[in-house]
Amino acid sequence: MRKLRIAVIGAGVIGKMHIRNLVKGVEGAELVAVASPSMARHTEWLSGLGVTNQFVDYKDMLARVDVDAVCICSATNTHLDIVRHVASLKKAMFCEKPLDIHFRRSKEIAAIVKDAGVPFQVGFNRRFDAQFNQLHRVVSQGEIGRPQVVKITSREAELPPRGALKSAGNVFIDIHVHDFDMAQYLMGDTIERVYVEGGAIADPSRADEEGFVDTTVITLKFSNGGVGTIDCSLLAVYGHDQLAEVLGSKGLAKINNTAPTTLEISNEQGVTKDKPHFSCLDRYPVSYANELAVFADSVLNGKPVLVGAEDSLRAERLALAADISYREQRPVYVREVN
Amino acid sequence: MRKLRIAVIGAGVIGKMHIRNLVKGVEGAELVAVASPSMARHTEWLSGLGVTNQFVDYKDMLARVDVDAVCICSATNTHLDIVRHVASLKKAMFCEKPLDIHFRRSKEIAAIVKDAGVPFQVGFNRRFDAQFNQLHRVVSQGEIGRPQVVKITSREAELPPRGALKSAGNVFIDIHVHDFDMAQYLMGDTIERVYVEGGAIADPSRADEEGFVDTTVITLKFSNGGVGTIDCSLLAVYGHDQLAEVLGSKGLAKINNTAPTTLEISNEQGVTKDKPHFSCLDRYPVSYANELAVFADSVLNGKPVLVGAEDSLRAERLALAADISYREQRPVYVREVN
Amino acid sequence: MRKLRIAVIGAGVIGKMHIRNLVKGVEGAELVAVASPSMARHTEWLSGLGVTNQFVDYKDMLARVDVDAVCICSATNTHLDIVRHVASLKKAMFCEKPLDIHFRRSKEIAAIVKDAGVPFQVGFNRRFDAQFNQLHRVVSQGEIGRPQVVKITSREAELPPRGALKSAGNVFIDIHVHDFDMAQYLMGDTIERVYVEGGAIADPSRADEEGFVDTTVITLKFSNGGVGTIDCSLLAVYGHDQLAEVLGSKGLAKINNTAPTTLEISNEQGVTKDKPHFSCLDRYPVSYANELAVFADSVLNGKPVLVGAEDSLRAERLALAADISYREQRPVYVREVN
Amino acid sequence: MRKLRIAVIGAGVIGKMHIRNLVKGVEGAELVAVASPSMARHTEWLSGLGVTNQFVDYKDMLARVDVDAVCICSATNTHLDIVRHVASLKKAMFCEKPLDIHFRRSKEIAAIVKDAGVPFQVGFNRRFDAQFNQLHRVVSQGEIGRPQVVKITSREAELPPRGALKSAGNVFIDIHVHDFDMAQYLMGDTIERVYVEGGAIADPSRADEEGFVDTTVITLKFSNGGVGTIDCSLLAVYGHDQLAEVLGSKGLAKINNTAPTTLEISNEQGVTKDKPHFSCLDRYPVSYANELAVFADSVLNGKPVLVGAEDSLRAERLALAADISYREQRPVYVREVN
Repeated sequence: MRKLRIAVIGAGVIGKMHIRNLVKGVEGAELVAVASPSMARHTEWLSGLGVTNQFVDYKDMLARVDVDAVCICSATNTHLDIVRHVASLKKAMFCEKPLDIHFRRSKEIAAIVKDAGVPFQVGFNRRFDAQFNQLHRVVSQGEIGRPQVVKITSREAELPPRGALKSAGNVFIDIHVHDFDMAQYLMGDTIERVYVEGGAIADPSRADEEGFVDTTVITLKFSNGGVGTIDCSLLAVYGHDQLAEVLGSKGLAKINNTAPTTLEISNEQGVTKDKPHFSCLDRYPVSYANELAVFADSVLNGKPVLVGAEDSLRAERLALAADISYREQRPVYVREVN
Repeated sequence: MRKLRIAVIGAGVIGKMHIRNLVKGVEGAELVAVASPSMARHTEWLSGLGVTNQFVDYKDMLARVDVDAVCICSATNTHLDIVRHVASLKKAMFCEKPLDIHFRRSKEIAAIVKDAGVPFQVGFNRRFDAQFNQLHRVVSQGEIGRPQVVKITSREAELPPRGALKSAGNVFIDIHVHDFDMAQYLMGDTIERVYVEGGAIADPSRADEEGFVDTTVITLKFSNGGVGTIDCSLLAVYGHDQLAEVLGSKGLAKINNTAPTTLEISNEQGVTKDKPHFSCLDRYPVSYANELAVFADSVLNGKPVLVGAEDSLRAERLALAADISYREQRPVYVREVN
Repeated sequence: MRKLRIAVIGAGVIGKMHIRNLVKGVEGAELVAVASPSMARHTEWLSGLGVTNQFVDYKDMLARVDVDAVCICSATNTHLDIVRHVASLKKAMFCEKPLDIHFRRSKEIAAIVKDAGVPFQVGFNRRFDAQFNQLHRVVSQGEIGRPQVVKITSREAELPPRGALKSAGNVFIDIHVHDFDMAQYLMGDTIERVYVEGGAIADPSRADEEGFVDTTVITLKFSNGGVGTIDCSLLAVYGHDQLAEVLGSKGLAKINNTAPTTLEISNEQGVTKDKPHFSCLDRYPVSYANELAVFADSVLNGKPVLVGAEDSLRAERLALAADISYREQRPVYVREVN
Repeated sequence: MRKLRIAVIGAGVIGKMHIRNLVKGVEGAELVAVASPSMARHTEWLSGLGVTNQFVDYKDMLARVDVDAVCICSATNTHLDIVRHVASLKKAMFCEKPLDIHFRRSKEIAAIVKDAGVPFQVGFNRRFDAQFNQLHRVVSQGEIGRPQVVKITSREAELPPRGALKSAGNVFIDIHVHDFDMAQYLMGDTIERVYVEGGAIADPSRADEEGFVDTTVITLKFSNGGVGTIDCSLLAVYGHDQLAEVLGSKGLAKINNTAPTTLEISNEQGVTKDKPHFSCLDRYPVSYANELAVFADSVLNGKPVLVGAEDSLRAERLALAADISYREQRPVYVREVN
């Protein structure tokens, strides 16, 4: 059984997560090398996992190791150069979201991979999570009739450190791009207009931080008439609160949070169960492994990738529209963004 | 123990509900008479309940029966005249919401009762529901820290008959006025800006019906920075879906639907429990009796009413702002409405 | 609409509860008098409720007031004399459970009411609770196929005061008689054998108190082969924990506890909701009013009572068998008890 | 990082599950060989997984492959011979439960491994399941005070094929041995007396099948006074229903079932969520990998095993006592079994 030989570029939090998954075992894939500009800091950890092919320079790695595909987890602003190089080598790519924080550069990436004709999957891992997957399945199979309203709750347990969001773009492009993708995926429709209310509400002391917004409510208008709302907070102290539902003409389909255990303690204070998981890494571990397995299957067996550059552009365009709406306090048509 | 002698004006669905509650027993209150312009249709039902003081003309009733207070449940466009008359008699009033569908007339009502100095309570029954009440209590006592986001789901199980919404104003003033009141009550703050997306989404064939909107998402911006969302549908086939939550700096407080029973059946198809109650009458029965008991207590013991004409104006102003937002597709400041 | 004229005998906790319900309004019934040997202690409370017909001697009351039916809530050991007297007057009776703590005397009561031919209902209120009622309905309608196993949890929030259980018989006859009745009612079958393990486990310091048992597990064998278990504790600090389920060939039907509200608070400690109600009075208020309304309907309209003396004997016989099993540490056939 | 070199003996359902886990990756362990008397049927499957060391004869395997430990998953009646042989080689052993269906032989196994002084862990996987583990943790840390009552629900989704239970002993030794182990583990106490009611209730047509019992209620009396109940069914059509709770002096701790997803669909029929998982393989996958990882850690690092032969004897003795109780219809003291 042939396995896809994957090299990982980037060894930050997300890079490490993919590396760990590949070492533990992702169906159809194997890790063959890792490159990171700050490799000195990661070499001990990688060696402990048995990863011996370590490189500082990804070009060097790709020149010396036999690789089928690359998993791009480096800083977002490095994606374009890496994609251009890997595309020139005609290797398949799995790239973390967003493609870039500048839409022009994201479109450039999409054009490069289209021209190169290489498989290219983007890291919208929630599509590979059992809960979201099942929700999508029942909606798309018509179990709740015609979809009319989508609601998503997207809350993080703790605020990012000062400055973190700036390099990552902003909350819309860094975090809620997942929610924009999911909203369209669940409704089976595209969004034509967004409106955002929000601000530095959880931590008003950071209102001066460039681009800092910690709490928003995003209203969506879909092309076929449906509506939606995404409520977002970067400070839900009880955990990673990630809910989604679709109301249709024949009923409602809704997914709930998962938690570490089902334990419930009843005492004089009340009936208490576990908090939701703390972060996306705790909440979505299986989805991260699944997305790579599906990617491997696509590449090895010549199947179309399930979520590609065009899907990412669709979500990123919405993130930009949301940012404009927030700054200009008006509804913004997605077609305004180009 | 003296009881407040209440006469009911109007014997429609809501009037009948209050009459039934008063006959079954509302603490501190007793029903002494009922007036309805279409009394002929109600006389048999009222006699069956033992209500013998029946009148076609409410002025006639108030002239002949010894009454402490009036419960106004007649058509909304009759409120103004009735209030003017009852105020001139210096009787206390419990009036169904909204005061009127025209804001100018609602303000007139508020001015009349203020001038008359009579107790005047408006039928925002949810404030007297155990769930909403407890939610308000924990939020206002600071159990979840500083409130940041309010979310309300407000769904009806079935569409109103064609034309019904027109005489009732529109969904914003007839139905969601409850949600506007609750959103401000829960946050302990006023809303300064609203934005609405929506349409005839559940039943597009009624898009031509004047003022018909069956599905909306309403975004709220509060004066002190908080945000909120109310999602509304007039066609949730599984029942009266009424949820509310407040996210604060120390946690989340949330209430769930109630259902007829806690029965749960597990079989080869899944694990199934009762649907939520079907309508507001099934969902909120206790709150309707409670609001009259609290009204009776206010009047009998000279306490201030808990929710008066000014509260209603605040909610009605929001309903108008929402209607403008929907029609003009732009965020509307509440201060624009006067 | 004629109402059943009910006189209450006994004004202890349960008597007061029925009195309050009748004053608030029980469909088809009205309270006409109250008798209690310790009337001096209750007279102020009763007068406050507007109950003016107050008697020390129930015979006196029945001689002087026009009464259709009697609600017997006095000390259990007084039931026999009262029933004999009321039966001689040919009045209908609603009698609290158990008929007596001595099975011989309970049988005497059953014989008296049978001979007199008067309507006689026993206070198994849970049969009139929405949850248990719905559970019984789905099981008896075959929704879960052939019933095979019944499980009941029956826990009280706090230990009775020292000595209380002695006068009340013991836990089996005073408390779990409800569970024995329910187990047979739900399974639609009779129990032929019981086995009990238990002891003074929650409060071992009361092991010396005559008849004191605070924690038991009761195993049931039904005549048609089914089995069951009732787990009982008098010290569940989190509240009145009352669960029931029936496993059948096509699935499981199960009811859960009810709680004051549906509020749920999520914070750094966990996700906490309300405790179950504290006592039977909080948990079953509607059922207590319902059972009297159904009794009134039976008497007024000549319908058979839904739960009579024979049903009570069936449950009391099981309580005695359980007590023997507990004391002799062996399975006991119900037919051994006579 | 050295890994424990494990050889698996037996390739039935459980053997295959352990093999699959070891191939996917169990921390600290690696699969080095598999032996099965019916290897011909498994060779293709094993080769597909990359397992090349395949043997018909386990002695042959142990003679030829460098092995640190053996995982014994063969038919229960072969355990004794295998354990004797492996013990003579001084290898560590992980052995599936029960040790044997004859208590005399189980004791022989325990004696052999004690004499040999080799690490020996028994397959009580539920101790390594997150839910049970957390329940045990909170109880043993005193969070619910002094434990008083333990309740376990142990239901399978489908009846075993005719004859299957006979070779496996009976339900008590084959299935409920898990529950006996868990009951004692959770209560931190030993059981001194058991009583069983039950029969061929789900499928009466198999009442004639030797040793066939599909439904039981097992009552437990603990040495320190606590009580417990285990209710068991081999036909819960809605899935693998595995609940456990401990009632203590300060509250209740309870675990619920897990299900494939958190999806909930609300429609005109009700509110429906996923059934519990179907079988132990679906319900406990992580626990099976965990138990091997913990075993590997014990052996590699010289730590005592967490659940050994003596624990298994304690559970098996209870299974025998239960079987006697069922057949003789009387409470049985565990000390009667030797």
